[in-house]
Amino acid sequence: MRHPQLNANGELKHLLTIEGLPRATVQHILDTAESFVGVAEREVKKVPLLRGKSVFNLFFENSTRTRTTFEIAAKRLSADVLNLNINTSSASKGESLLDTVDNLAAMHADMFVVRHAASGAPFLIAEHLDRHHGPHVHVINAGDGRHAHPTQGLLDMYTIRHFKKDFTQLRVAIVGDVLHSRVARSDIHGLTTLGVPEVRVIGPLTLLPAGVEQMGVRVFTDMREGLKDVDVIIMLRLQNERMRGALLPSAQEYFKQYGLTREKLALAKPDAIVMHPGPMNRGVEIESQVADGPQSVILDQVTFGIAVRMAVMSILGAN
Amino acid sequence: MRHPQLNANGELKHLLTIEGLPRATVQHILDTAESFVGVAEREVKKVPLLRGKSVFNLFFENSTRTRTTFEIAAKRLSADVLNLNINTSSASKGESLLDTVDNLAAMHADMFVVRHAASGAPFLIAEHLDRHHGPHVHVINAGDGRHAHPTQGLLDMYTIRHFKKDFTQLRVAIVGDVLHSRVARSDIHGLTTLGVPEVRVIGPLTLLPAGVEQMGVRVFTDMREGLKDVDVIIMLRLQNERMRGALLPSAQEYFKQYGLTREKLALAKPDAIVMHPGPMNRGVEIESQVADGPQSVILDQVTFGIAVRMAVMSILGAN
Amino acid sequence: MRHPQLNANGELKHLLTIEGLPRATVQHILDTAESFVGVAEREVKKVPLLRGKSVFNLFFENSTRTRTTFEIAAKRLSADVLNLNINTSSASKGESLLDTVDNLAAMHADMFVVRHAASGAPFLIAEHLDRHHGPHVHVINAGDGRHAHPTQGLLDMYTIRHFKKDFTQLRVAIVGDVLHSRVARSDIHGLTTLGVPEVRVIGPLTLLPAGVEQMGVRVFTDMREGLKDVDVIIMLRLQNERMRGALLPSAQEYFKQYGLTREKLALAKPDAIVMHPGPMNRGVEIESQVADGPQSVILDQVTFGIAVRMAVMSILGAN
Repeated sequence: MRHPQLNANGELKHLLTIEGLPRATVQHILDTAESFVGVAEREVKKVPLLRGKSVFNLFFENSTRTRTTFEIAAKRLSADVLNLNINTSSASKGESLLDTVDNLAAMHADMFVVRHAASGAPFLIAEHLDRHHGPHVHVINAGDGRHAHPTQGLLDMYTIRHFKKDFTQLRVAIVGDVLHSRVARSDIHGLTTLGVPEVRVIGPLTLLPAGVEQMGVRVFTDMREGLKDVDVIIMLRLQNERMRGALLPSAQEYFKQYGLTREKLALAKPDAIVMHPGPMNRGVEIESQVADGPQSVILDQVTFGIAVRMAVMSILGAN
Repeated sequence: MRHPQLNANGELKHLLTIEGLPRATVQHILDTAESFVGVAEREVKKVPLLRGKSVFNLFFENSTRTRTTFEIAAKRLSADVLNLNINTSSASKGESLLDTVDNLAAMHADMFVVRHAASGAPFLIAEHLDRHHGPHVHVINAGDGRHAHPTQGLLDMYTIRHFKKDFTQLRVAIVGDVLHSRVARSDIHGLTTLGVPEVRVIGPLTLLPAGVEQMGVRVFTDMREGLKDVDVIIMLRLQNERMRGALLPSAQEYFKQYGLTREKLALAKPDAIVMHPGPMNRGVEIESQVADGPQSVILDQVTFGIAVRMAVMSILGAN
Repeated sequence: MRHPQLNANGELKHLLTIEGLPRATVQHILDTAESFVGVAEREVKKVPLLRGKSVFNLFFENSTRTRTTFEIAAKRLSADVLNLNINTSSASKGESLLDTVDNLAAMHADMFVVRHAASGAPFLIAEHLDRHHGPHVHVINAGDGRHAHPTQGLLDMYTIRHFKKDFTQLRVAIVGDVLHSRVARSDIHGLTTLGVPEVRVIGPLTLLPAGVEQMGVRVFTDMREGLKDVDVIIMLRLQNERMRGALLPSAQEYFKQYGLTREKLALAKPDAIVMHPGPMNRGVEIESQVADGPQSVILDQVTFGIAVRMAVMSILGAN
């Protein structure tokens, strides 16, 4: 098996996907993140681990929210951060993706945080950098098409570990638009890697990928059935554009069947936690009383997300 | 009387409006600003007061100019600054204002600088933060609808104090589109709080709010009459869109009646100062020879504005 | 001869154009850049030369690429960097160019990096600053209309010196759309100043400025003839909009006549270097195998570009 994100010593060189990442690597990231949770609570929320390094947020797909999480993580590590939104710039001047990357690498970039609408773009960039610019430039996938969003997956793992401790006794349900969700893919790989015995996906058939069972999950189209006795519920964001297509009847109908309400939540274990990668569509995939309720750990995910991104960046920067 | 921006000890927790702010608090801000005026003239224009703090410029309404003043103030205090323009981002993804704020607070934001087209939005955010995220997150109103722009008001007070020393002997005229101006409102509150005995507003009836007299000001529709013997003239910006509505005849006509010319300026006291919050419409609300003339302190306002914003940020950060 | 960019002691106060710059000044910049090439290869790529200084990237014309090079150079010098894209902001509010500059200068800006579609805009700004804000504010021209792009010219000179050592023995060819190219103008002035005995321009007559010979260059419309025995080939970017006009037949036809292919490159000296300011149109002005080939120094240009910009900024900041 090929590990394009590990170097010859088995150390993390890029973070492109959770798929195929050794369990020890995942655990090392989570352990490192733990130390950064404390940094964010300090008076001075800054450590000098990436001082003098140049981190480029290379966003080919606009996302202020995700860009902000990486920017703040990098700044708290004392890096210099450069934000590039590439819809309006060189891309429109006809420069190729790899020419852009070559240019920034020639400016002695240390790290690229890449978001791209095309699945695989960060892999392409990482391979190109390895081949042409040596081992000192790192790539973090901040979401590529429908493929992967590994830091979101890792922060979800961190959150589950924080609240549930032991992965090997858990039943986890992922609910909603699995078909279009890179978060779902990253979460499934993370959960499997960490030894979760039962991962369920719940959603209408139109929003479940064909053959999803082969990822080692149980499939439910009935949410009430699927939520029974689970320890963790991961709600997925439903993008409005899905409504406009033929995939779904209406937001109201979707909410009725797959929205997480207090009533449906009661079917899970009493201490089940509720997660959501955000931004939420309240009243579409989740009821406000659940989103803001005692079982919701949605804002903890955000907090841990910064620590996890700091962990990934500092590990890459040290390798 | 309720002071949503003061904590139990009467210290400034948020800066939302000058209205209702104790005179001592206003004076403390102005005194603190004085020390920062010197910082901007140093070789190294930086103090470490907000080192390791995360300041979020949360601009729901685009304003490069205002955003820049806060960004530079925060950077000179050594804070990490994150700029978020929220027209294109999560807002368009259907995330609510308060969900956005919750998310950023969960990233351990220390301070939000908020600009919003809706009056009251920064209050809503401040109350929400107080209720859900504790006393360590601060909000600065950088302009909300037609309501308030308190840092502009404070920098205007600083400027007047700098040039005129004693507020209790002054006659101040505010000229132009008072109806749509948050600056006018903030200035009136500031001047009243600091004991200015006579505040005048001058403008066409269509641009004066109904019942403005109840704010303790004298109303003039004739500019020549209104300017007589004043010590301070605060010109307001006339937004072009007003012209397109039915509120005004034409820019030429407006300038003739309410534009500040050398000739009209001569009616004020000989040592009267001329102020403008910028950006100016030369030839509409002010004649270039006045804007650039010896009585103009418009650029001093800008300089003092940085110091005042540093003062507000450092006071909030310390409380 | 007037030197608006030199102060009374002959030191660089602004960098507006290479034209008329004394050879010693150019050489001083290149020598200084040499020391910064090393900084970029260090573990901590940062020096404190501009600590506490405020650098404003004032881009009236969008260019993520160029803005990034200046931003990273300023950050590696430890400056505070403020990015202002002025198409959407005050400009649309009707504020004049010089009012914008006055405002930013009043915030104690130390340096402006200006890009503007109008030739001469950075000169206007520099003169205005000199007259109204004293000698401590510096302007760097980051590209003005078709006029000049001096830091690109200087980094090209650095690159040529790095690979060829002695300017006084060189034959240099500049190929393509000379008419619209500020890079070409800056390069010609740089090469002439540094004593290059033979500068050639090669292109179709429609893309050569009338009277270009008066700049001291030899004109060729036949690329094969023009490339013969040259030491350095500087390819220019062909903007797509030229195609849409009447100036050029088609991209294919252009490539056939003026695209740099391996076959045409073979006409130059065997150790000739190939340069391009980027972003490249592969298959239009240059063949991929040449752009990525052993004679290409295109990415070296980018690397040296950061060092040259750090050099210019640090020299200005010290004067």
